[in-house]
Amino acid sequence: MDSISLIRTPIEAELRDFKELFDSSLSSSNALLDSVVSHIRQRNGKMMRPILVLLVARLYGAVTPATLHAAVSLELLHTASLVHDDVVDESTERRGQLSVNAVFNNKVSVLAGDYLLATSLVHAEQTNNYEIIRLVSSLGQKLAEGELLQLSNVSNHSFSEEVYFDVIRKKTAALFAACAEAAALSVQVGEEEVAFARLLGEYIGICFQIKDDIFDYFDSKKIGKPTGNDMLEGKLTLPALYALNTTKDAWAEQIAFKVKEGTATPDEIVRLIEFTKDNGGIEPLLPCCTAWHPAAAPPGRGNTRTQCLCRCQRLRRSQKPSNPPADGPAAAALIPHGTPRPFSPASSYLFYLLDDNFLGVFL
Amino acid sequence: MDSISLIRTPIEAELRDFKELFDSSLSSSNALLDSVVSHIRQRNGKMMRPILVLLVARLYGAVTPATLHAAVSLELLHTASLVHDDVVDESTERRGQLSVNAVFNNKVSVLAGDYLLATSLVHAEQTNNYEIIRLVSSLGQKLAEGELLQLSNVSNHSFSEEVYFDVIRKKTAALFAACAEAAALSVQVGEEEVAFARLLGEYIGICFQIKDDIFDYFDSKKIGKPTGNDMLEGKLTLPALYALNTTKDAWAEQIAFKVKEGTATPDEIVRLIEFTKDNGGIEPLLPCCTAWHPAAAPPGRGNTRTQCLCRCQRLRRSQKPSNPPADGPAAAALIPHGTPRPFSPASSYLFYLLDDNFLGVFL
Repeated sequence: MDSISLIRTPIEAELRDFKELFDSSLSSSNALLDSVVSHIRQRNGKMMRPILVLLVARLYGAVTPATLHAAVSLELLHTASLVHDDVVDESTERRGQLSVNAVFNNKVSVLAGDYLLATSLVHAEQTNNYEIIRLVSSLGQKLAEGELLQLSNVSNHSFSEEVYFDVIRKKTAALFAACAEAAALSVQVGEEEVAFARLLGEYIGICFQIKDDIFDYFDSKKIGKPTGNDMLEGKLTLPALYALNTTKDAWAEQIAFKVKEGTATPDEIVRLIEFTKDNGGIEPLLPCCTAWHPAAAPPGRGNTRTQCLCRCQRLRRSQKPSNPPADGPAAAALIPHGTPRPFSPASSYLFYLLDDNFLGVFL
Repeated sequence: MDSISLIRTPIEAELRDFKELFDSSLSSSNALLDSVVSHIRQRNGKMMRPILVLLVARLYGAVTPATLHAAVSLELLHTASLVHDDVVDESTERRGQLSVNAVFNNKVSVLAGDYLLATSLVHAEQTNNYEIIRLVSSLGQKLAEGELLQLSNVSNHSFSEEVYFDVIRKKTAALFAACAEAAALSVQVGEEEVAFARLLGEYIGICFQIKDDIFDYFDSKKIGKPTGNDMLEGKLTLPALYALNTTKDAWAEQIAFKVKEGTATPDEIVRLIEFTKDNGGIEPLLPCCTAWHPAAAPPGRGNTRTQCLCRCQRLRRSQKPSNPPADGPAAAALIPHGTPRPFSPASSYLFYLLDDNFLGVFL
């Protein structure tokens, strides 16, 4: 059984219900809109966010109609933001397929994204839960703010890891956190469980984005993005920032400035990627995801724990969580208060999402 | 007292509360977003939509916090849609001021529009009224659909007035209808009153858009748009459609096709505008707004009633209202069932919004 099938095991039926609701949410009488929607559907995404929603709901109870509407709402918000991001980033590809702006144009992308965003809210309302509606609408604000922050950051000349974490929290982790929180809200659990779900979702999101950023340093047809794409867009991600900040190398800093200004040549980008790899920008990051949940790591994994925890501490310092884990044994510090014990059967599948080897399958 | 001040008379205090809430809704910690918001605020719009919300609420009762949140929500949705429309239409000006995309760029406009849209939903949620949330989110869908319909229509070769009315209902009238409906919902009235408010808002919106389209046939610094702007964007509005359909003139049709294709020269556009004026495309439309409410027209106005009603019938046929007025005396036909009688003092001010001479001040 492949990794994704394994993760989906406890929620097969619920995923089918999700797909049915998602597809029906996008039927429209507008021919142009229908073409855009068909194009987006072809992408056949791995549905990591809906899977997270359904697993968290199963962690605490049974999936309700509100859970399904929340999952559809958040997947639509995510899709809308991808469609608009491709306009903003001038991307012509998305996972090996032409982007909406490439097939149609920027105008159609802007309006289709608006339609998806509004449809997201239609489903948020259908949860009949004011907290979920508030969550989805404030998430919409955060995602736009995150992208704007990244846009301003391209033109500023600092190599701040703190700004990097601020951006990925707003751009990526906020969505995962909302998925997990909405799921908990949809099954009517207490405040502590909701807070735990939120934190868990945020951790998964941070690990997911770091991993996604690392992939951009390698050549892989599978991801459907060319290597160095982020740098071509003027973005310096954690590996390069780490290498720059630890070496303070004058040549690398000069190229990094050019990346931010958008004046670096493809050859310079290749050399900065090599420099990053040669200077420990990537290797120590690879197992960091496992470090977020050492207690939950399946046997045989997480055997580089000391190394992981060291990185994990740094990660935690950089991202300054609003609710920092208390001091104490590492495992206890990483599983926050309010964690339901004992975990229901869904929990081990849920924690696979945090695992290095499993997280990779969604990229 | 000027016309706008007169209309605002019964809601001065409420408008101040609205402005305060609107301004506070847009404070952000993102510097780039703050610059965009400051630029938008400079526009100092005439606040026709909030005025409509507050007048309708006063028509039925007293303005509540839900009324104010609904007004802010709908004004933000309107603002977001303008910011995105300027990207779609490649406009560099909005009411005599540089558009957001002209001052910043398309990328910033897309993201700032998304932020405004999400903030609109934050306020919809704060009404604590599921019907208002549903109204705002489905309005978001309609506005995007309306723009997409207009985009497809640019490239189709028909001169259909029916499509024109479909577009303006979705693009403009839907927003006015939602303003009036949300206002009624915010003061907890019965279904008949809500339906009346919605219909009234829709009529105001249709008249407003027709009037706005007519202005594009005249040179006016006041409007902040150059003459013939719509045709430059490939749009044929009611006056030209009327002239084309009544004359079936071969030369005019040829130029009109070129307008739709975006290949008409500025000189050809000037000549098509003259042709439209010479062939009755504009004059008979001018008093049509008054015709929507002959019974409520102040004394001395609406004296071309026969002519108006004739146009009004045509307008009504074209727009095929889902709830058509019953046959009978014109006045009764135009004021639908469910109209509260006697009107509260706010009602006469409200009906000013439908008046030709007053409606113009908002353009």
